[in-house]
Amino acid sequence: MISPEPPSGRFDGARHLFAVRVYFEDTDLSGVVYHANYLRWFERARSDMLRLIGIEQRAAHDAGEGAYAVTDMGLRYHRPARLDDVVLIESRVEAVTPATCRLLQQAFRGTELLCAATVRVAFVAPSGRARRQPPAWLAAIQSVHEPVTADGAGHALKGPA
Amino acid sequence: MISPEPPSGRFDGARHLFAVRVYFEDTDLSGVVYHANYLRWFERARSDMLRLIGIEQRAAHDAGEGAYAVTDMGLRYHRPARLDDVVLIESRVEAVTPATCRLLQQAFRGTELLCAATVRVAFVAPSGRARRQPPAWLAAIQSVHEPVTADGAGHALKGPA
Amino acid sequence: MISPEPPSGRFDGARHLFAVRVYFEDTDLSGVVYHANYLRWFERARSDMLRLIGIEQRAAHDAGEGAYAVTDMGLRYHRPARLDDVVLIESRVEAVTPATCRLLQQAFRGTELLCAATVRVAFVAPSGRARRQPPAWLAAIQSVHEPVTADGAGHALKGPA
Amino acid sequence: MISPEPPSGRFDGARHLFAVRVYFEDTDLSGVVYHANYLRWFERARSDMLRLIGIEQRAAHDAGEGAYAVTDMGLRYHRPARLDDVVLIESRVEAVTPATCRLLQQAFRGTELLCAATVRVAFVAPSGRARRQPPAWLAAIQSVHEPVTADGAGHALKGPA
Repeated sequence: MISPEPPSGRFDGARHLFAVRVYFEDTDLSGVVYHANYLRWFERARSDMLRLIGIEQRAAHDAGEGAYAVTDMGLRYHRPARLDDVVLIESRVEAVTPATCRLLQQAFRGTELLCAATVRVAFVAPSGRARRQPPAWLAAIQSVHEPVTADGAGHALKGPA
Repeated sequence: MISPEPPSGRFDGARHLFAVRVYFEDTDLSGVVYHANYLRWFERARSDMLRLIGIEQRAAHDAGEGAYAVTDMGLRYHRPARLDDVVLIESRVEAVTPATCRLLQQAFRGTELLCAATVRVAFVAPSGRARRQPPAWLAAIQSVHEPVTADGAGHALKGPA
Repeated sequence: MISPEPPSGRFDGARHLFAVRVYFEDTDLSGVVYHANYLRWFERARSDMLRLIGIEQRAAHDAGEGAYAVTDMGLRYHRPARLDDVVLIESRVEAVTPATCRLLQQAFRGTELLCAATVRVAFVAPSGRARRQPPAWLAAIQSVHEPVTADGAGHALKGPA
Repeated sequence: MISPEPPSGRFDGARHLFAVRVYFEDTDLSGVVYHANYLRWFERARSDMLRLIGIEQRAAHDAGEGAYAVTDMGLRYHRPARLDDVVLIESRVEAVTPATCRLLQQAFRGTELLCAATVRVAFVAPSGRARRQPPAWLAAIQSVHEPVTADGAGHALKGPA
């Protein structure tokens, strides 16, 4: 007997894909997913992305080095998600600086865009102060940083393959 | 013996003020409030604001009329909140249309700004389609709509009195 | 202008009373409060109780002394709570040992019992190991420990005054 | 390019197995998983179990037939879970009546038992009243109901293979 796998995403080129399913915990009495819960899904996807490129957040926390913290976020809700829906979270690194990263994260049900977010995170020391990312982390993230091309404005609106 | 009061905010002119306290449930292992949990506080404050101006969300839901849904949100995180902190949520209605409202919501600890959000909500039928707000709701919200003045860009950064 | 108060409970003899209101975040698509969210309310009430008897959880955490952790919990759900309901959480310390406390916590809407829980917490060091409670904490908790009397089996079912 | 799979459990005989991973959202400032969040994991596992045996909760909700509601729960927390841990939720149906089911649900990290719960759910109409389960649901659940055998008291404590 092989145990079931925990949730795990994968990269398709520089795009990170991660699937979630909607449970009762995610919904509210309006019958659809509560708006704040997309942020939990996006965080799961970011953590999975970091894990896949070799960044160990727990080790960094335990060593007192620091962690990423969200500093800015812009969200647009397009369509609601409902119980049992399978939602695919697509994440792309859009910009990297020594201390910060900016990601585009989008939630799709099939080809329908449900929610799009631009998220900026900064590396912060346990004291709460912003600091440079560990060099190995910066290198790992740059390896999946896809420069926006001339026709890049449109790529965000394409659904997953 | 008089029972303790449930959380209740109040208006100071057109500003709605609502206080929360940070509990274990709000924090994560980084030791500060998890970023998504500000959205829960902002929703509590909006619901309290609606209640105070006479809008009964539950009755509207039960009658199948509809509810507000968040359509857009912009957030900036300035400083972290920690266990036991008292956080004051200040909410202002910045713009009203027949179907939507835009609010500025800010979380303060004393005079320190922790998080600022611009939130747009739309009234939606149970089917999920946007529709005009009930006339009584529109009137109630316009009664606390504070037009942004010439020097309005600055008011968002003032702390609560 | 006086700011609104954050949620605060009070003691009525040895009973601690704490009021919450039901928001969208608390509900699920069945239209009532999601069962796990009572645990968040009970934790808020326990934290408020500790605060009122002078126990500073954050200082203990920051000093690396430890914190209470739930070790056992029994819950019975009697009636559902709905949006906008005011729910009163009544908490009593039922038993105290050098390392643990057992509480009875009940959620009422008016005189209706919604949910009753027996919760046992243990004091644990940051390492995760159980240890004796700080003497000052033990003394504070014993000051609100109401020994169960001969007719005590019934007291749990009385509603708040 | 094949999209990643959403979380999905599987049956090993009558045992249902479902894996989760610990994210920041699950933890609190004590550095481990917040106690109430195990209930969310257990609910995900129950919903996945129902899905695998052909029970469509969303269709039943949409048709106004009803849903399962938790009526009783007993929990024992043995060891804490930490960020990035893979946690396996093992669920067994222990008892079935026309209107209720009782499950044993246990969370393991490898062979270590983290948390064990006995959960009783009842089928309730949208009105909130308990009612008999739909016959097809009852039959589906009985198909994975493993009667406790003479040595059954011990099986709950065995770790997953």
